[in-house]
Amino acid sequence: MVDHLFLRACRRQPVPRTPIWMMRQAGRYLPAYMAVRKRASFLELCRNPDLSCEVTLQPIDEFGFDAAILFSDILITLPGMGIEVEFPESGPKITNPVRTSAAIAALHVPEPVPYVMEAVKKIKHALADRVPLIGFAGAPLTMLTYAVEGGGSKDYAQTKKLLYGSPKDAHALLDKLARTCATYLEAQAAAGADCLQIFDSWGGIVSPGDFREYPLRYAKLVIEMLRASPARDVPIIYFVNGCAPYLDDYASSGADVLGVDWRVAIDEVRRRVGTGVALQGNLDPGALFAPPAEIRTRVADILARAGSTGHIFNLGHGVLPETDPEHVRAMVTAVKELSASS
Amino acid sequence: MVDHLFLRACRRQPVPRTPIWMMRQAGRYLPAYMAVRKRASFLELCRNPDLSCEVTLQPIDEFGFDAAILFSDILITLPGMGIEVEFPESGPKITNPVRTSAAIAALHVPEPVPYVMEAVKKIKHALADRVPLIGFAGAPLTMLTYAVEGGGSKDYAQTKKLLYGSPKDAHALLDKLARTCATYLEAQAAAGADCLQIFDSWGGIVSPGDFREYPLRYAKLVIEMLRASPARDVPIIYFVNGCAPYLDDYASSGADVLGVDWRVAIDEVRRRVGTGVALQGNLDPGALFAPPAEIRTRVADILARAGSTGHIFNLGHGVLPETDPEHVRAMVTAVKELSASS
Repeated sequence: MVDHLFLRACRRQPVPRTPIWMMRQAGRYLPAYMAVRKRASFLELCRNPDLSCEVTLQPIDEFGFDAAILFSDILITLPGMGIEVEFPESGPKITNPVRTSAAIAALHVPEPVPYVMEAVKKIKHALADRVPLIGFAGAPLTMLTYAVEGGGSKDYAQTKKLLYGSPKDAHALLDKLARTCATYLEAQAAAGADCLQIFDSWGGIVSPGDFREYPLRYAKLVIEMLRASPARDVPIIYFVNGCAPYLDDYASSGADVLGVDWRVAIDEVRRRVGTGVALQGNLDPGALFAPPAEIRTRVADILARAGSTGHIFNLGHGVLPETDPEHVRAMVTAVKELSASS
Repeated sequence: MVDHLFLRACRRQPVPRTPIWMMRQAGRYLPAYMAVRKRASFLELCRNPDLSCEVTLQPIDEFGFDAAILFSDILITLPGMGIEVEFPESGPKITNPVRTSAAIAALHVPEPVPYVMEAVKKIKHALADRVPLIGFAGAPLTMLTYAVEGGGSKDYAQTKKLLYGSPKDAHALLDKLARTCATYLEAQAAAGADCLQIFDSWGGIVSPGDFREYPLRYAKLVIEMLRASPARDVPIIYFVNGCAPYLDDYASSGADVLGVDWRVAIDEVRRRVGTGVALQGNLDPGALFAPPAEIRTRVADILARAGSTGHIFNLGHGVLPETDPEHVRAMVTAVKELSASS
C-alpha cells in the first residue's frame, strides 16, 4: 500500500506537506455533482453504488484532495433500525420520531447497509490507491437527536427531555445507536475504507458534564468496539462540532484524530489536548466567500497555528452549497504550497 | 434607591445570597402569559405598554425573581431603521433582507421606539422598586444576522458572504446597528431601566479572530457610547451565546457582567476572564426537564463553581416553552436556599 500523506498525518508521522480534504467535498457547490443530481434524487444517489462512486471521485479529480470520503448520509443507518427517514429539499425528516421506552425497545441493531458496502468496494477499486478512502457514520448522540427530534432542531428540547427527564431510556437508545455505529464502521473498514470518521455534529449542545455522560461516553464505546474488532488498526477521526468547551476531555475519546470546528483557535486546541492525537481542521466554511488572497492569508494562519506534524487541513464543518469552486481551488493550492515551504 | 441584590452582584459587591433571574422569564412556559397571548398577538403585546408591563411582572409575582426584564423583542428596533419584520409562529421574518451597499446606505439610525420607553416607565412604576428592571437590545452582529439572513439560519451563509466577501459593507451596517443599539439602550436607561443587557445570541458563529473583528468590536462600541452618555453608571451585561472559544477576549468588552451559556463550565470562564467582571449563568435550559432533585444538584454544582461574589444565577439561554413552571420554582428555591447557606 502506498504511504499516503493523509494516513501518515493521521498517525502523526512526519509529512513533506500538510494533507487536505474537505467535509462535504462531493456536494452541491460542485457543478459536476449537480449534473448527477439532475438524474437522481439525493436518496437514489446514496443507494446507487455506481453513482455514489462517481460523485465520490469528482472532487479528487477536480481539486486533488488528499483523501476521498464515501458519498452517503449519516441517517442512512436509521431505516434498518426501524426509523423511517425522508430527504426533501428542506432537510431530512423522520416520520416516526422515537420518544418512548417502548419505541426504543422496538429498535433493531441492524446488519450493515449492503449498498453502502458495495459502494465502498467500487470506490476503492476506482481510486486504485490514488488517495485513501474515508468511511463514516454519525456518532450515537447525534443520531439520537435526529431519531428523537424528527429532524434538525433549534433548541433540542425533545433531546433534552429524553436525556435529563428519562436518562435510563436515553442510555438504552444510545447503546443501540453505538452498536449500530460500530458494526457499520467495522463493515466499511472490511469493505476497504482506510480511515473512519465519526461525526458528532450535535455533540456540542450540552454542558461539559453532560458531554462526558452522553456524546463522549458513547463515541468512546464505538471506538472501543472498533479497537476490539478486525478494524483495530484503521485510523479513527472523532469530530465534535462546537468542541471548544470540552477540550480537557476531548482527547480521551481514544480517536487517532480529533476534528476541530472553525470557532476555536487550533493552537488552543493543541495546547489543551496534548500531542498524543492528530488534529483536523479548521477553516470557517464561510471564509470561502472571501477573495482568494484573503483565503490564502487565513490558510497560512491555520497552518502556522497547527504546525506541520499531526495536522490534516479541512474546513471546520461542511462546505456551504453557494461556495465558488474556484475558491475551493484557492484553498487547496494555498495549503499545498504554504505547508510545503514551511 | 433600595440596595438590590441583583445590582450589588453586577458590581461584584458582597451579597447575602446569589440573585437569580431567567432569560425569557416572561414567556410561553407560563400559563399567565399564555392567557394574555389569547387576547393579543406577540407584536401587539410588544407594542402595548400596559400588556408589556403586565407580563413583565408575572414571573416576579409568581417565582420571586430578583430582577425584572422588559418584555419586548430584539427585532423591535429594525422597522425604524427601514427593515420590515413579521412575527409568525414559525419565527421572525424580515420581508426585505439587507444585502447590498445601497440597501445598507438607505438604513436610518432611528429615534428610540416610543412605546418601549412608555413600557419601561410603566413597569418601573408598577415594580415600585421591589426589584430592578433590566432593559435590553440585540448586539450589532446579532442584529446583522437577522437583517441579512431575513430570519434565523442554519449556517449563516448570507452573513458570512457579507462579512468576508464585502467587509466594507459589513462594517458600514454594523456601525449603523451599533449606533441604533446605543441610542436605544441609553433611552431605556433614561426611562428608568436599572441595568442593560446586550444580547449577542449569534456572536458565537465565527472564528476567534472574526469575533474580535465583528461581534466584540461593535459590542465594545455600544458600551463605549453608553459610558460616554448620561447612562454611564448603569451596569451593562454582555451575553454571547457560545462564548467558550473567545474567553481570552470576552472580558475586554467593557461590560460589568458577562453572560455565560450552558455549554461551558463557569469556573473555567472565571479562570480565563479574571475577577474584574461579574458572571451571569449558566444552567442548561434543557436541564429544567430533569426532576426537581436533579435540578437542585445541578444548581449546587453551578453555585460551587461560580462562588458567592460577582455571580448572578441564570439559565445559559432562554427558558424553553415546554418547561414545567414547577421546575422553574424548584430552581429558584434551590438557588435561594443553597447560596444563602454556603
